[in-house]
Amino acid sequence: MESIEHQVTLKSEVVHKATLAKLAAPSLSLLSTEQKNTALLLMADALVAETSSILIANAEDLGRGRANGINSSLLDRLALNEQRIIDMAEGLRQVVELQDPIGDVLETIDRPNGLHIVKQRVPIGVIGIIYEARPNVTVDAAGLCLKSGNAVVLRGGSSALYSNRRIVEVLHEALSRSDVAADAIQLIEDPDRSSVDQMLKLNGLLDVLIPRGGHSLIQNVVKNASVPVIETGAGICHTYVDESADFKMALQIAINAKVQRPSVCNSMETLLMHEKFAALHLAAIAEQFIANNVELRGNEKARALVRSINEASAEDWDTEYNDYILNIRIVSSLDEALQHIQQHSTKHSDCIVTENAEHAVRFLNEVDAAAVYHNASTRFTDGFEFGFGAEIGISTQKLHARGPMGLPALTSTKYRVSGNGQIRG
Amino acid sequence: MESIEHQVTLKSEVVHKATLAKLAAPSLSLLSTEQKNTALLLMADALVAETSSILIANAEDLGRGRANGINSSLLDRLALNEQRIIDMAEGLRQVVELQDPIGDVLETIDRPNGLHIVKQRVPIGVIGIIYEARPNVTVDAAGLCLKSGNAVVLRGGSSALYSNRRIVEVLHEALSRSDVAADAIQLIEDPDRSSVDQMLKLNGLLDVLIPRGGHSLIQNVVKNASVPVIETGAGICHTYVDESADFKMALQIAINAKVQRPSVCNSMETLLMHEKFAALHLAAIAEQFIANNVELRGNEKARALVRSINEASAEDWDTEYNDYILNIRIVSSLDEALQHIQQHSTKHSDCIVTENAEHAVRFLNEVDAAAVYHNASTRFTDGFEFGFGAEIGISTQKLHARGPMGLPALTSTKYRVSGNGQIRG
Repeated sequence: MESIEHQVTLKSEVVHKATLAKLAAPSLSLLSTEQKNTALLLMADALVAETSSILIANAEDLGRGRANGINSSLLDRLALNEQRIIDMAEGLRQVVELQDPIGDVLETIDRPNGLHIVKQRVPIGVIGIIYEARPNVTVDAAGLCLKSGNAVVLRGGSSALYSNRRIVEVLHEALSRSDVAADAIQLIEDPDRSSVDQMLKLNGLLDVLIPRGGHSLIQNVVKNASVPVIETGAGICHTYVDESADFKMALQIAINAKVQRPSVCNSMETLLMHEKFAALHLAAIAEQFIANNVELRGNEKARALVRSINEASAEDWDTEYNDYILNIRIVSSLDEALQHIQQHSTKHSDCIVTENAEHAVRFLNEVDAAAVYHNASTRFTDGFEFGFGAEIGISTQKLHARGPMGLPALTSTKYRVSGNGQIRG
Repeated sequence: MESIEHQVTLKSEVVHKATLAKLAAPSLSLLSTEQKNTALLLMADALVAETSSILIANAEDLGRGRANGINSSLLDRLALNEQRIIDMAEGLRQVVELQDPIGDVLETIDRPNGLHIVKQRVPIGVIGIIYEARPNVTVDAAGLCLKSGNAVVLRGGSSALYSNRRIVEVLHEALSRSDVAADAIQLIEDPDRSSVDQMLKLNGLLDVLIPRGGHSLIQNVVKNASVPVIETGAGICHTYVDESADFKMALQIAINAKVQRPSVCNSMETLLMHEKFAALHLAAIAEQFIANNVELRGNEKARALVRSINEASAEDWDTEYNDYILNIRIVSSLDEALQHIQQHSTKHSDCIVTENAEHAVRFLNEVDAAAVYHNASTRFTDGFEFGFGAEIGISTQKLHARGPMGLPALTSTKYRVSGNGQIRG
């Protein structure tokens, strides 16, 4: 009996708050850009003004985290300080500068019967965000959802609960001084995993779920949600160095793609190299990777050229290391490289380095990925680097949005049809 | 043990055919418009040339259906004849005329660092279609997927198995004389429902599922699929007749929205009417509905005006009748109408009939639906009526596509990034 009561209580919070968000959504869709921007600036100011209370709440999370023995990298992501709060506020001010996508006319159609049809951007409605320890995601997601006219139901990691709760209190207080309904931002406080499970099935209250975090979090959402999901994350990215590649360019791009920030999804996991280029340059390139503390794993052809390359296992080609480890496969043709990518790519970002224009075009045409590169590092797959001014995530699915997502990815459309009495014959 | 073997056998067909489709997909994405059109015309000719063998297969389905006692409307949807086969072929020829969306450039971005970014339409990949008895959907879906460069895995109703099998054999034979891989079109023949269940979980092989059919088929897919879904179908559509509406226009639009084809999703289920308009005109309008064999159910205010209106139950306002039944609610204001729609609309198509421009704008802004109408019948929500020249379905979700879906709804995008050695700092 106890467990049933427990379930009912849990259900109440998620359903209750999602319902509040849904009830707030219609009013959000009607806000002017100015009303939304005013609210965002109030939110930014409030965060800075409330720095000390937020840091106190964060200290509670950190203390609890240390007591529970969570690891140092998680503690680092969880930890706030004055500068990080200033950065969160600055992020909201940047969202103010973004163009408001709501109301944009995407298409107008005039039909022979006189119907005038306008396809216009509208908010999606209620967006569920499921994420992990970083409290800055709370602010970031709330800001982007608000600017795009959406209500948001946030479910952050339980380790950041006190921080998130205080942050959302501060945001609510700011909204109460604006034209925006405070119910637009909801935080699920229930730390039990079942609150996530409930969100996954909340069709009718949530319009979309965006998971942000590690592989297992995202896969849990993708596999179990009946609410539509925008999948983000996995990136096994390839760089193929063609026979005709410029040595210096190839070296710089490969090193940048691997070591500039190995932990992120757009970093390279596998370097493919034409055998003729490899015969001349693999040794020098391998040396640079090793100097950057990268462990190299390769196929037979690679190991025959450079002895310090370890043997790659079958699974290695399908592993997203997010670490200082790199697979190297020497291939005998562009076709072999394309085939490898087709088999092993997660369709995130793949690159060819070549001076051969025909090969470049073939690669850009034939590789099926959110972003395909010629002579540039895969690390550029990013909303800011693409000039969107924001990034909700990088979609690795093919529906709705693919690749870096700016504000338009948080919108839907509506057809407005005007007539003068038309009926269908 | 037997059941496990059974499962393995079942799994084999779905996984095997989806794998074949996935392997065919890359080559499809590279076909020219001409190559695709040539294949479509060969398919159209082959269907007509093979009319008799298709009708024989169809006769087997009909015989089996009659033996199993399936109802006459299902038999009608299942039945083919010479004209229906000509119509299917004609449908393919119309797809030839459609503009090919693949390769369309949606956006170009030039970054300060010299990166040149082009956002281009590409096929989605492999599309799964789950549908019911109509064999024409087999041809229709195969044609639209092919034109948009996608492979398709078809799972039609088991009652149409022989018809679908013969049709797909004919299409395969036509493709074998074209540049298009015959594996682009796959038919799941296993009549067991578990083959549908398997498709729902085929992440990595299927990129999207589009269910086409009745409520329970669609809800099964929406609730249980881990593959992304485009939800189609449900339509509880409203027409609100405002105080200032023109009587004749309101009558024509309301009658058209209900009785021109009651069985479809864009027909009206609920008529909302301002009390001042109703006092003058409800009697005449009700009379017309009754003359068209429509059963009327209403709220107290409606029944006080017209005695032949039955009492509407609470559930009636949330029921998609798809039949000659209409709910009528008399309201005292536009706000009451908007509130009713917000509570009961399935966000498909809703209409206001008014001569008040301000009310029209409020309605078009505030009603959250795929299509919102001013002074025109909701029956126009249709890919052909919108001028798309095709319709894969009418999306009732907010992600990816909303409202009538033409060929672009079967596409994704890819960012092509060209550089000259850019690395990220």
